[in-house]
Amino acid sequence: MRKLFADNLRKARQARGISQQRLAELVGLRRTYIGSVERDERNISIDNIKRIATALGLKAVNLLGRDKEC
Amino acid sequence: MRKLFADNLRKARQARGISQQRLAELVGLRRTYIGSVERDERNISIDNIKRIATALGLKAVNLLGRDKEC
Repeated sequence: MRKLFADNLRKARQARGISQQRLAELVGLRRTYIGSVERDERNISIDNIKRIATALGLKAVNLLGRDKEC
Repeated sequence: MRKLFADNLRKARQARGISQQRLAELVGLRRTYIGSVERDERNISIDNIKRIATALGLKAVNLLGRDKEC
């Protein structure tokens, strides 16, 4: 679950050409936090999932499911 | 987002006729924790979202989206 979110996040961020630093600024979190989430090291909370998804123009479910599931 | 998860969780739990106490036992969390999540009081983590969804026989996305989204 964490891994799927981490992979989806990295793909969505890179597809938009946004750096970890820029995403961190958009979301109001640290770049190191974004990096650790993308490395599957963080037990991220629902509030931060929502913030990150919104910053990427996505719904949280888009970052939490496989493409075929949504 | 929290509210949507809280509402989906309560509906899914009640639809299965499972008490908060029973769900807590299945998931290895406290009943008071389940109650506070259903009251939208907790910034629940991705690991616990996954645990609860699995205990209810669901995918996490089923608890995080509206029906029309998934």
